[in-house]
Amino acid sequence: MNTREMRDAIEELQYAYVHCIDDDRLEEWPEFFLERCLYKVMPRENADQHLPIALMYCDSRGMLQDRVVAHRAANLYAPHYYRHLLSAIHILGCERDEVAVQTNYAVFRTMAEPIHYGETEVYSVGKYLDKIVFGDGQARFSEKVVIVDTCRIQSLLVTPL
Amino acid sequence: MNTREMRDAIEELQYAYVHCIDDDRLEEWPEFFLERCLYKVMPRENADQHLPIALMYCDSRGMLQDRVVAHRAANLYAPHYYRHLLSAIHILGCERDEVAVQTNYAVFRTMAEPIHYGETEVYSVGKYLDKIVFGDGQARFSEKVVIVDTCRIQSLLVTPL
Amino acid sequence: MNTREMRDAIEELQYAYVHCIDDDRLEEWPEFFLERCLYKVMPRENADQHLPIALMYCDSRGMLQDRVVAHRAANLYAPHYYRHLLSAIHILGCERDEVAVQTNYAVFRTMAEPIHYGETEVYSVGKYLDKIVFGDGQARFSEKVVIVDTCRIQSLLVTPL
Repeated sequence: MNTREMRDAIEELQYAYVHCIDDDRLEEWPEFFLERCLYKVMPRENADQHLPIALMYCDSRGMLQDRVVAHRAANLYAPHYYRHLLSAIHILGCERDEVAVQTNYAVFRTMAEPIHYGETEVYSVGKYLDKIVFGDGQARFSEKVVIVDTCRIQSLLVTPL
Repeated sequence: MNTREMRDAIEELQYAYVHCIDDDRLEEWPEFFLERCLYKVMPRENADQHLPIALMYCDSRGMLQDRVVAHRAANLYAPHYYRHLLSAIHILGCERDEVAVQTNYAVFRTMAEPIHYGETEVYSVGKYLDKIVFGDGQARFSEKVVIVDTCRIQSLLVTPL
Repeated sequence: MNTREMRDAIEELQYAYVHCIDDDRLEEWPEFFLERCLYKVMPRENADQHLPIALMYCDSRGMLQDRVVAHRAANLYAPHYYRHLLSAIHILGCERDEVAVQTNYAVFRTMAEPIHYGETEVYSVGKYLDKIVFGDGQARFSEKVVIVDTCRIQSLLVTPL
């Protein structure tokens, strides 16, 4: 696989990932990760100072599946839609079979409950720091660290970013 | 044309399309479509439930031209600027000479009237579901379905998305 | 260098540029420009009417460095983070060794001071009109004209766009 094909495969992965969330097909979301993986949502201030506390922390695909079950069965929240925009990927480096990539994102949230029906707001902006592994003809995340600029969120952080 | 060249041609088409709207060269807008085409703006809720009602519906290039004439001659609205951001295209499939593509978008609107002069807001987010045909060395839309998340719009939907 | 490689090199440049600003590594910012260059921030209304007044105007790398020194040493402003999203680049043409490129952008600002801590807003949208030169295995801006739609900015324009 040359650099161009790798870029295309990574872009495909990023877009399949965000469309999965935007379309609310969350049951498929853990499949984008390796069995042993790291998914972490970090406030930018903590990341900048190398402080360890994360808003969300999962270190296996099972924990990700658990998140989805909790989301479907236990969490309470106003119905809403998500829509992600990503900037072009920026390859930071390759180590053995792992590619490190940085991508800026913005998520817009549109409310679907009666009072604010159809209103859109900037929900979260930040960047993805990803590590991606190619195996079995499939690209997957071994690591996805979401650095969030936005820390004032008008509701629980319920859906993955 | 290989996949890479097709991706590039589709990206070029998408950007020529949005710059045409952002630059207010609407008279050129129908030229991005085939003579027989479909242009539809649908609320996401209707699209999800396969309900047919659209906010805007045109099924020929003539109807698109009619829109532009109405926009220039009849509609009343506060002066404003548009600015589109698109995510990378996501190819859904090819059937005969038609390529189906999905692209997330965000449109920002900046007011140009005195009271709110220069203020920017998120105007509409959603996705384009496009069918694109290559012919005569030119890519054109045979279909553009705009699925809008944002349904609360502070004025008439006057300019195409 | 073929068209594909040129596109990739330009995208790399654009992303290195915005990550430099987003990461607040402003001391590196003048390095993206040639020694003799033009950096200009223009309101869209002036640009459309070919009026010359700019919000920011620098015509050498030294002036850009001066900006950064002023920013670090003299300007007063509430602490904040920036996050850029760019659309795909749109190549407008090539003349001798210079490539002209247009790119839509949106900058989101998140406040880092106590009262509005973590709140994100659309800070500026518009487009980059760039001229890029390839030399010494390095792409650099000979010209970057930022056309801003957003003219109502809640504070000084302190950080480059």
